[in-house]
Amino acid sequence: MKKYQRLAQQMTDQIENGVWQPGDRLPSLREQVVNSGMSFMTVSHAYQLLESQGRIIARPQSGYYVAPRAVVQRPSRPPVQVMRDEAVDINTYIFEVLQASRDASVLPFASAFPDPRLFPLPQLNRSLAQVSKTATAMSVIENLPPGNDELRHAIARRYALQGITVSPDEIVITAGALEALNLSLQAVTEPGDWVIVENPCFYGALQALERLKLKALSVATDVKEGIDLDALAQALQNYPVKACWLMTNSQNPLGFTLSPEKKAQLVALLTAHNVTLIEDDVYSELYFGRDKPLPAKAWDRDDMTLHCSSFSKCLVPGFRIGWVAAGKHARRIQHLQLMSTLSTSSPMQMALVDYLATKRYDAHLRRLRRQLAERKQLAWQALLRHLPPEVKIHHNDSGYFLWLELPAGIDAGVLSAMALEHHISIAPGKMFSTTDNWASFFRFNTAWGWGEREDRAVEILGKLIRQLLN
Amino acid sequence: MKKYQRLAQQMTDQIENGVWQPGDRLPSLREQVVNSGMSFMTVSHAYQLLESQGRIIARPQSGYYVAPRAVVQRPSRPPVQVMRDEAVDINTYIFEVLQASRDASVLPFASAFPDPRLFPLPQLNRSLAQVSKTATAMSVIENLPPGNDELRHAIARRYALQGITVSPDEIVITAGALEALNLSLQAVTEPGDWVIVENPCFYGALQALERLKLKALSVATDVKEGIDLDALAQALQNYPVKACWLMTNSQNPLGFTLSPEKKAQLVALLTAHNVTLIEDDVYSELYFGRDKPLPAKAWDRDDMTLHCSSFSKCLVPGFRIGWVAAGKHARRIQHLQLMSTLSTSSPMQMALVDYLATKRYDAHLRRLRRQLAERKQLAWQALLRHLPPEVKIHHNDSGYFLWLELPAGIDAGVLSAMALEHHISIAPGKMFSTTDNWASFFRFNTAWGWGEREDRAVEILGKLIRQLLN
Repeated sequence: MKKYQRLAQQMTDQIENGVWQPGDRLPSLREQVVNSGMSFMTVSHAYQLLESQGRIIARPQSGYYVAPRAVVQRPSRPPVQVMRDEAVDINTYIFEVLQASRDASVLPFASAFPDPRLFPLPQLNRSLAQVSKTATAMSVIENLPPGNDELRHAIARRYALQGITVSPDEIVITAGALEALNLSLQAVTEPGDWVIVENPCFYGALQALERLKLKALSVATDVKEGIDLDALAQALQNYPVKACWLMTNSQNPLGFTLSPEKKAQLVALLTAHNVTLIEDDVYSELYFGRDKPLPAKAWDRDDMTLHCSSFSKCLVPGFRIGWVAAGKHARRIQHLQLMSTLSTSSPMQMALVDYLATKRYDAHLRRLRRQLAERKQLAWQALLRHLPPEVKIHHNDSGYFLWLELPAGIDAGVLSAMALEHHISIAPGKMFSTTDNWASFFRFNTAWGWGEREDRAVEILGKLIRQLLN
Repeated sequence: MKKYQRLAQQMTDQIENGVWQPGDRLPSLREQVVNSGMSFMTVSHAYQLLESQGRIIARPQSGYYVAPRAVVQRPSRPPVQVMRDEAVDINTYIFEVLQASRDASVLPFASAFPDPRLFPLPQLNRSLAQVSKTATAMSVIENLPPGNDELRHAIARRYALQGITVSPDEIVITAGALEALNLSLQAVTEPGDWVIVENPCFYGALQALERLKLKALSVATDVKEGIDLDALAQALQNYPVKACWLMTNSQNPLGFTLSPEKKAQLVALLTAHNVTLIEDDVYSELYFGRDKPLPAKAWDRDDMTLHCSSFSKCLVPGFRIGWVAAGKHARRIQHLQLMSTLSTSSPMQMALVDYLATKRYDAHLRRLRRQLAERKQLAWQALLRHLPPEVKIHHNDSGYFLWLELPAGIDAGVLSAMALEHHISIAPGKMFSTTDNWASFFRFNTAWGWGEREDRAVEILGKLIRQLLN
């Protein structure tokens, strides 16, 4: 155990023994240096570690405080490979990381978005200009939930191209996939219900569970093979699960795409237990192979899947247009939307209809996929070149994330805090889980182009990791 | 008691005695005519009454069914003038009424929106076209919560013009006022908490309480004087209230504007009990007097008010742009928004910034107010002319709603169902309350212009009311 880890452990013990109570102001870095006789660097690392563990909170101009106690009960009878969390408690950490990655001076390797310069801005702006000519006073009212008719038809036709029959009437237009996912979850659960998520999973799922006061069952998920179906079966057997929220294509953060066989098995298993699948499929257009992968919904014969997607990751994030193919839940979801945001903005829906009518969407997607594949390749090479060989880079063939594994014992949260001082952001593993399994992992966004600046940044990352290794 | 009321009562008794269970199919109208020996009209009115009371549900092509039992417990120790509802249960009724009013063939007296033809479409379209020229790839990312900087500054400056100091940093841009109100409520409550609403109040408040599993205390609210402060004080004394959601200017549905003295008293009372005020102020620009009324927030010295408003009722509903001046809660609300809808669409925010920069907004508002006042006057005269003198028309001097009171015993829900057959929609009082107090009231939207068609529609309404009176 390194010095800073020892200090952190010592302070953790003090907190657990009530020496420091939640809300208490902790000694400043300077005071701690004097008290402990350790170096400023060591003390600073210890505090960063504690902060990254959610044990203490930094308040600007004020100092460090003990964090409120997290209510996470460990399983009384722990099912193998299934972590049970009585109360999902995702703190402000995710928010901080995301905010930091928005700063233009920071390299956004932590970002969830692809580089917007990859999107067809001139064509989209032309569609916007077109709407400014055709919008009428009444078009506003025609776009209340379930959303613009033509847009829902256009989306239904894209499902049909994959051989999936979705009626436009089942589709609700939402503020991005995030609203679609949130409304779907709310439509099929009550506070206190159990919901299955992947471990690790998109942090939006954990936040939604927290917001809706649901209980999470995190099921082990492999970086290549995806969710462990045995563990899933066990969870379904042992808990009264209401819904399962997961990603089947280009999973965030791991990057895998489930095999067709596994998608079929997943649907069969959930259907057998009468559990609704909330399928987050926002990256489905970003495959690198020949054929667009099917969603799990394609295997669903019993209307048990709410399929959520959007145009945010593959065409235009700023429009905030997503949808859910909600089947029998469509009406309930319309109700919930009318109660919370009323509707998606009308000119944005009309602009998308105009853009889709130009038939340029598929050509754009082909170009986008090629560019993303190239950039991922460049990023991967740079990471291989600059990071110490102890770092494992989990490769995958879609989307724009890589999943990196630091040697055991190195905390990616600490690396993230150190990197941020060099204006480099990464997304630490603990953003994607309520368990500690992923403390030494991080997600790396490869979509923001690759040049000297990026290369230098990876070189710095490599140095910081070596510093932590010693 | 009239024949149809007797039949309805009889069926109610049968339902309460378990003759008909929730979910049971009821005899068809035709079967009932044969069974009872009453006329088709009488039986049909009885069913409409039961449906309007939420006791039975009509399913197209299928018939009538007994509704699920509503979980509304009456107060164990009823505080005078305060209705307590353990579980807020607003059914699909509101949804149905709103959907009906969207049908272009139906006169939208039930609508919550003003006639969009009153809005400056050419100027707004010009701003949209401007955005289509200036939008950049990165502008998307700059508009994540708390929203576009310039827009927040523009809003802060409008507060300043009223002598209210709100920092742009306290403002969060939302999908209309509805998202602002929902996020505000969520920011200050936990499921199961008590929240005070007006009786009657904007149905969105009741829906939000239902969605967030909160408990409602409905405080008596006078058509002229607004909320009963004695009853409010009593409620605050007797219940651990977390928040109070109300409208201080041009209240929906009643139309009153609280006096400055009353606003001051309201803020003082809530502050004394440490209860957050969630102020819904969407109609504040639609005053008919000389000066824009202040929000209650103007009297708040302790950062206890979340002030929510939007451009939807006075400039452009379709953009879905609102905001909350959230004070110390701004950060929490940003978090909640990032978790649920991520952000408001970026081009829409930019178009508003462009429009506001043209300095035409205030001229538009002056014209809008004049037109709304004229239309309200015309509607009022037509209602006076055509409705039977037993109907009381509660007049008010702002916005575009009138509140009408049918003679006691006449159910506005029945009138609504009858009117809809003539393609006329009205908003029955029970949309605005969880209690039965307002069964014989309805809200009438006067903003949709006034011509022969509208005049004829009011004539028909008059006839239908006379029919119910006999």
